[in-house]
Amino acid sequence: MEPATLAIRFPLLARIDTPEDLRKLPKERLPELAAELRTFILESVAKTGGHLASNLGAVELTIALHYVYDTPFDRLVWDVGHQCYPHKILTGRRDRFHTLRQWGGIAGFPKRDESPYDTFGVGHSSTSISAALGMAVAAKARGESRHVVAVIGDGAMSAGMAFEALNNAGDMEGIDLTVILNDNEMSISPPVGALTKILARLLTGEPYRTAREIGSSLLSAAPPLKAFARRVEEHMIGMLTPGTLFEEFGFRYIGPIDGHDLTTLVPTLENLRETGGLQFVHVVTKKGQGYKLAEADPIRYHGVSRFDPKAGLPEPAPQPAPTKPPTYTEVFGQWLCAMAERDPLLIGITPAMREGSGLVAFSERFPDRYFDVGIAEQHAVTFAAGLACEGFHPVVAIYSTFLQRAYDQLIHDVALQNLNVTFAIDRGGLVGADGPTHHGAFDLSYLSCIPNLIVMAPSDEAECWRLLTTAYTYEGPAAVRYPRGTGPGAPLPTALEPLPIGKARVVREGKRLAILAFGAPLAAARPVAEALDATLVDMRFVKPLDAELLDALCETHDLFVTVEENAVIGGAGSEVARLLESRPTPPRLLRLGLADRFYPHGDPQKLLACAGLDSESLHRAIDDFYRTSP
Amino acid sequence: MEPATLAIRFPLLARIDTPEDLRKLPKERLPELAAELRTFILESVAKTGGHLASNLGAVELTIALHYVYDTPFDRLVWDVGHQCYPHKILTGRRDRFHTLRQWGGIAGFPKRDESPYDTFGVGHSSTSISAALGMAVAAKARGESRHVVAVIGDGAMSAGMAFEALNNAGDMEGIDLTVILNDNEMSISPPVGALTKILARLLTGEPYRTAREIGSSLLSAAPPLKAFARRVEEHMIGMLTPGTLFEEFGFRYIGPIDGHDLTTLVPTLENLRETGGLQFVHVVTKKGQGYKLAEADPIRYHGVSRFDPKAGLPEPAPQPAPTKPPTYTEVFGQWLCAMAERDPLLIGITPAMREGSGLVAFSERFPDRYFDVGIAEQHAVTFAAGLACEGFHPVVAIYSTFLQRAYDQLIHDVALQNLNVTFAIDRGGLVGADGPTHHGAFDLSYLSCIPNLIVMAPSDEAECWRLLTTAYTYEGPAAVRYPRGTGPGAPLPTALEPLPIGKARVVREGKRLAILAFGAPLAAARPVAEALDATLVDMRFVKPLDAELLDALCETHDLFVTVEENAVIGGAGSEVARLLESRPTPPRLLRLGLADRFYPHGDPQKLLACAGLDSESLHRAIDDFYRTSP
Repeated sequence: MEPATLAIRFPLLARIDTPEDLRKLPKERLPELAAELRTFILESVAKTGGHLASNLGAVELTIALHYVYDTPFDRLVWDVGHQCYPHKILTGRRDRFHTLRQWGGIAGFPKRDESPYDTFGVGHSSTSISAALGMAVAAKARGESRHVVAVIGDGAMSAGMAFEALNNAGDMEGIDLTVILNDNEMSISPPVGALTKILARLLTGEPYRTAREIGSSLLSAAPPLKAFARRVEEHMIGMLTPGTLFEEFGFRYIGPIDGHDLTTLVPTLENLRETGGLQFVHVVTKKGQGYKLAEADPIRYHGVSRFDPKAGLPEPAPQPAPTKPPTYTEVFGQWLCAMAERDPLLIGITPAMREGSGLVAFSERFPDRYFDVGIAEQHAVTFAAGLACEGFHPVVAIYSTFLQRAYDQLIHDVALQNLNVTFAIDRGGLVGADGPTHHGAFDLSYLSCIPNLIVMAPSDEAECWRLLTTAYTYEGPAAVRYPRGTGPGAPLPTALEPLPIGKARVVREGKRLAILAFGAPLAAARPVAEALDATLVDMRFVKPLDAELLDALCETHDLFVTVEENAVIGGAGSEVARLLESRPTPPRLLRLGLADRFYPHGDPQKLLACAGLDSESLHRAIDDFYRTSP
Repeated sequence: MEPATLAIRFPLLARIDTPEDLRKLPKERLPELAAELRTFILESVAKTGGHLASNLGAVELTIALHYVYDTPFDRLVWDVGHQCYPHKILTGRRDRFHTLRQWGGIAGFPKRDESPYDTFGVGHSSTSISAALGMAVAAKARGESRHVVAVIGDGAMSAGMAFEALNNAGDMEGIDLTVILNDNEMSISPPVGALTKILARLLTGEPYRTAREIGSSLLSAAPPLKAFARRVEEHMIGMLTPGTLFEEFGFRYIGPIDGHDLTTLVPTLENLRETGGLQFVHVVTKKGQGYKLAEADPIRYHGVSRFDPKAGLPEPAPQPAPTKPPTYTEVFGQWLCAMAERDPLLIGITPAMREGSGLVAFSERFPDRYFDVGIAEQHAVTFAAGLACEGFHPVVAIYSTFLQRAYDQLIHDVALQNLNVTFAIDRGGLVGADGPTHHGAFDLSYLSCIPNLIVMAPSDEAECWRLLTTAYTYEGPAAVRYPRGTGPGAPLPTALEPLPIGKARVVREGKRLAILAFGAPLAAARPVAEALDATLVDMRFVKPLDAELLDALCETHDLFVTVEENAVIGGAGSEVARLLESRPTPPRLLRLGLADRFYPHGDPQKLLACAGLDSESLHRAIDDFYRTSP
């Protein structure tokens, strides 16, 4: 946006380059700023895509926090980061905001090397209290009178990690840590768990308090009579709120307060800043606040692609249009329903990703066999193990990057006991705009070393269907990892027939060179194989490998290339190498995959090219290997 | 023990081959049985070694559970399993109990393939509620009137996973799940965290209730007036207990009750069994109960080697005797104190393993810089990340197998942000008697694929000291993994001087064959290198590898062997392979390490032989490779 246009359409926002500027505004003008900021976000995200509803809901809270606290000296730690857009815009990134989540542009999540106001990088949920406690302990150790504020959503509070942090904090002396629970009654999926009820009870027990009700004279009591005000306030809170969970942990509970009412938020936070200690503030906000369409359907407006804010998101087709191939996520969703129809013992489990993991249809058709356990990956996997012990067959639908949270449970509770649990691992490989916290870059490496587990990677949608069936039919733990988005558009099978375990599929027979593709990169490798008249294999199984086929290929080939969209370190190629090196005269091998770095966010095609995994880069690398081999 | 001797010394216990037999005893005789069982455990563990104090504390509770519940139809799920000995003895394993934790003998933890009474295998903490919830959901789905009981310690309750499970359970309808909190006021390390205070508050609020106080007529009310009794009881509990954490989660809280008083335990459990639903029973026990020495020092008596029960454990020497080399754990502890003296920014963090990780001296000398965060590996790592953001330098001391719990935090919070956190990873490799849940078999694989992280494995104690210094001096995340127990006895350096990053050390120069040892296996490889006149390299760095040295070796060697005490899949050898295969004429390579299986418990030397990593097996394998190479 041209500076002149900005100044006309967003007169207050145009003047705010840093929170310093914000703090110069008189309080009365903050609602006006909030309105501008909200419009700015809506218009910008409608062009770039991104997380919308949660950001619209966090506008006033963000303004209040930067207004009251002396950021960046005071530390503001966001959780997940789905709500960091107002923060980014107010902290010097307004004019770059149109580059959001684009290649080379600003990230969709807080990121330490982007701004000193981004105190802790994030993307996964429930880390904020732990990180903030570390910062608060550091401030105490240094004797710095720094305030540390963690902002965590109600969904993120259900993860065990948040409780570990509360438990640890509640035991410490002399720590200045404020936890703000941004309760928008809505994680990405509908809220679940006892905590939801606890929070609801807190809300119904009392109407949200406004400054008027609480008596702004009390909470905003600038400097005078602070000790008295505090005593009264504590007494009041003791009367108003039932003994809460958070007080049990040693925090002072304040709330619930209306997170869109700046005349409450600002004086409350001012008061908290002065009192210090362990504070737990329960702020109630509304996802999508101020944009009617998002308010009405915050799940649909959680993450959006480019759209027209006047018209809203286009209505989704009831079935994917025949011209538009289904995403892998949708393939999984359809497969799950088909398999659930055949096997009454199937149980579907998601850690709070019903929509993202494609479980909506399943949850509606098989509500008794559908379990959303909340943001609780560790529990999800061990809960599945418990079900498997009793003869049920759980399918845990989880993103590759989030499965990292349940790594121990996968090893200790599932694989070691060789239990019949199927893992449907979505978002394997580079995911695009969500960036390094969300790329599924490591799963083949961290899964391959686990005994008893079999690991598969489908090369297209039909293969995904077949390998899911294979995993489910296999007696023991099995994982299928598939990429984000759509594949080449292979028509889905209708039958639920497993493939033989550990058997690859020769796609093309050629000479001398064999390209072994694991999963999605098969498509990019195909033209390369054509061009070099190479053999092309869809490996299907990362573990166990098709040793027989590899042995046979060694008789007629002396050059091998493995291709995978996973860290090349310890990835699928690693075991191919071991198999080849066991031969008396090992053939040459080139392993292609993700390099030893974290990849940024941005357009998937650009990312693939950056990783050397698009067709052109593959061609270049393999051609080079081919031609330089003796 | 001969059957005749058994029958004389343990007349009741001798008659109990299954819980069926137990349930035939009249209630009045249970205390007698408890006394026999306690003596039996004490005498047996004094011979075999094992976990003592927690098992002595769980005698009455175990008897009561098997007496009241219809095991194995009703499911009894133990947490961690430090307290499963009474359970094992009462469920058919009395006569094999002398083989405890021995090679081929019964395991020290519950294990599904050992007995149908072991409903869920365990070893790591805090899994029981999740697994039990899975079983309870299964029972509901099948319409089986099965009771599911999870027994969890107060230490294990501090892990987030337990809260994830409570949160999920509290939201479910029609589930029969009883959680028994075995509160022995003592995890392995002294208890920490707000939860400790919460539990203490519950205890001080009321004297422990005995059957007399509660009125056994009420709680044991066999069938009659159940509904009434329950209503009254609920009312009473509402009056007696403050609003508790567990009630917030939707559980009915009962307690605290004396876990050594069978006349309370049995009728209370009988009542609970009849009422069903979500129950949370707070049972107070004493670690070491009935054995004065263990009662007085339960931490020392937590896990013991063979000892004389009359004399007690031998007094530990204030310093390790000069003839006895220090364990790697002790080396780390000494190093930590030395480094802390030099660098005031050093912070030591342990997730509840002060003793096991060698932090006792540090915690005493640097109490302000010592943080035991409770059993909370996820939080431990992200808390460290928060401290590192503020310029402190945390050292996270953690067992290899428990770091699996913080895998995502290591990637997402530490490595991605390239933060200055040092990981001191103890128990890397096979650990012996604790078995498959505790072997550190996978760390080199799951760590190698993480960008920014450097990974080291010392070959002896002096190297451990140097590599810890190197890790600490390095600007960024770094991990040193060392084995359990003692090493070859290399004298420790006094200086704190780092080694160059990514540089290996040639131990012996030889011909044609180069043996590349990662960490502890160097010692076993040494005689093999001598015998074959091979070059022997102490690689020091798993990541980054010493590519320069490997390149140089390739000029003069055509056979390479890597040796590591880690899964060969994706382990240190995997990247050596990639380096070698990039050469125009790759040399032959043999990778030796742990096979793709879970290794059992037992004598470390037997385990090493079983894994082919003792000197003799190495010799055989390398010799074979050498002689069959063209």
